[in-house]
Amino acid sequence: MTAPFADRLVQGIRTKNTPLCVGLDPFADRIPAIFGDIGADPASTLLKFGTAIVDIAVKHATVLKPQLGLFEQFGEMGYAAARMLCEYAIGAGMLVILDAKRGDIGTTAEGYARATLGAKPGFAADCVTVNPYMGKDTLEPFISLAQREAKGVAILVRTSNPGAADFQDLQVGDAPLWRRVAEMLSPEAERLRGASGWSGLMAVAGATYPDEARALREAMPTSLFLVPGYGAQGASARDAVAGFIATRQGLEGGVVSSSRAVCYPEPAQRANTLADWRSAVEEAVKNAASELRAACTR
Amino acid sequence: MTAPFADRLVQGIRTKNTPLCVGLDPFADRIPAIFGDIGADPASTLLKFGTAIVDIAVKHATVLKPQLGLFEQFGEMGYAAARMLCEYAIGAGMLVILDAKRGDIGTTAEGYARATLGAKPGFAADCVTVNPYMGKDTLEPFISLAQREAKGVAILVRTSNPGAADFQDLQVGDAPLWRRVAEMLSPEAERLRGASGWSGLMAVAGATYPDEARALREAMPTSLFLVPGYGAQGASARDAVAGFIATRQGLEGGVVSSSRAVCYPEPAQRANTLADWRSAVEEAVKNAASELRAACTR
Repeated sequence: MTAPFADRLVQGIRTKNTPLCVGLDPFADRIPAIFGDIGADPASTLLKFGTAIVDIAVKHATVLKPQLGLFEQFGEMGYAAARMLCEYAIGAGMLVILDAKRGDIGTTAEGYARATLGAKPGFAADCVTVNPYMGKDTLEPFISLAQREAKGVAILVRTSNPGAADFQDLQVGDAPLWRRVAEMLSPEAERLRGASGWSGLMAVAGATYPDEARALREAMPTSLFLVPGYGAQGASARDAVAGFIATRQGLEGGVVSSSRAVCYPEPAQRANTLADWRSAVEEAVKNAASELRAACTR
Repeated sequence: MTAPFADRLVQGIRTKNTPLCVGLDPFADRIPAIFGDIGADPASTLLKFGTAIVDIAVKHATVLKPQLGLFEQFGEMGYAAARMLCEYAIGAGMLVILDAKRGDIGTTAEGYARATLGAKPGFAADCVTVNPYMGKDTLEPFISLAQREAKGVAILVRTSNPGAADFQDLQVGDAPLWRRVAEMLSPEAERLRGASGWSGLMAVAGATYPDEARALREAMPTSLFLVPGYGAQGASARDAVAGFIATRQGLEGGVVSSSRAVCYPEPAQRANTLADWRSAVEEAVKNAASELRAACTR
């Protein structure tokens, strides 16, 4: 039997000794020409680029986070490439958090849950990001499927973008909305809790707001965090692990995602050969992994 | 030059003399076997079923609303079928509101906007549903593209599911959250406003809550509403148009979606021939169109 997602994730983080999650964000204008002409042949270019990233990422990180919206801009070929890359990464031994930010009612939510977490023709991802705005009943199909299949669900609570404050920070009684969302979700975390004590009902907690991350940790003590915003979005490694807690292994409590900084480091953009590109990207991934390792070391 | 989406939508509603929007929700266990074996050949079955629905819908309604999550459960083949059906419906003269409920930050939101509203390899839909939880900056790429390309954006404000109250109804000061969302979006409506006076910055306003629909109309006076929840979800035609306003043509102010009741009426489920299925579905579509027509007649 497969172990709960939370335990597999924590095990992976301990083995790699870093909470780094490699974000796979395919930007048409940044993927080097050595991988092909993305305009003429998006599927092949995305697959070549994506598998090359996975081959490097698997050595230094435990999680891959493909950004589905950037695949979908290439239509069904992009959608198919994203699914195949999930399969490839899982086959290589990585855990996949599919960044899809889905959310819908009843039977449609069931459809999205199957599409993202379910086996073929679904993505069979280990975890998927979902949006809570429509209410707890719209999250239930994802949580149920995750509970049955030892998967995870990462719920947007406090995001890392500038406009996150517009609605998430509105005061509801004596606390901001995001805190109400966290409090309402917290009891559900028990259902995806593993032997490690951590829960695979993850909370997305933007690295750009470390104070909020600490407050969110109080509200959701067992939930692993998915922290975006580290690197290109400007947050430091220390800020990124603000919601982690001290354990004998050091700070623990989630994964920290870096996308642009690891997939498109400046020297890789200038590379003319695959070998040059590989060493530039591996350097960037290793740096991110060790910066986060250092931030988690007490 | 293409007229603004709002004007095209209002013109279509006036021509067909009904606010009916036909929801295309492909349920694996409800699509009759006469369209094929969906397990063995999802793409072909979805295309046959979907084009048959469009051929009927175009006679009685101006809008088709494909539910993308129910296509995605069939993987990339389902995603492709949804895109082709949008193309087919637009070619047949319908307007397409793609029910995708997307929402993400910056460049990813731009990716989703291109994927849903943009031309091939995108869906080239006329309008797309989006989730506001992440903030105004995450809606901006959709609104910008819509403004440039005479398209629309339908924002989830007050949804029709039982759990909608969990977060949308939380009190922020003296008003529920959904009302704050509406107030913050209202100024943007001007950007997608047509000569008709109506705006293509649509608000999703659940038919199951007519009081809220009337209050939402106050907060967003020019926004056309996309009203789900009519028919199978239990709201009456009168309830569904509660947020519409009186004009010389009768009540006007949006479209009302029906999915299960029109795509899977009981007699159609028993049909053994395509002809029998067609007449049963056409009967259901006609009934929904005239029930809503009557509700809009003063």
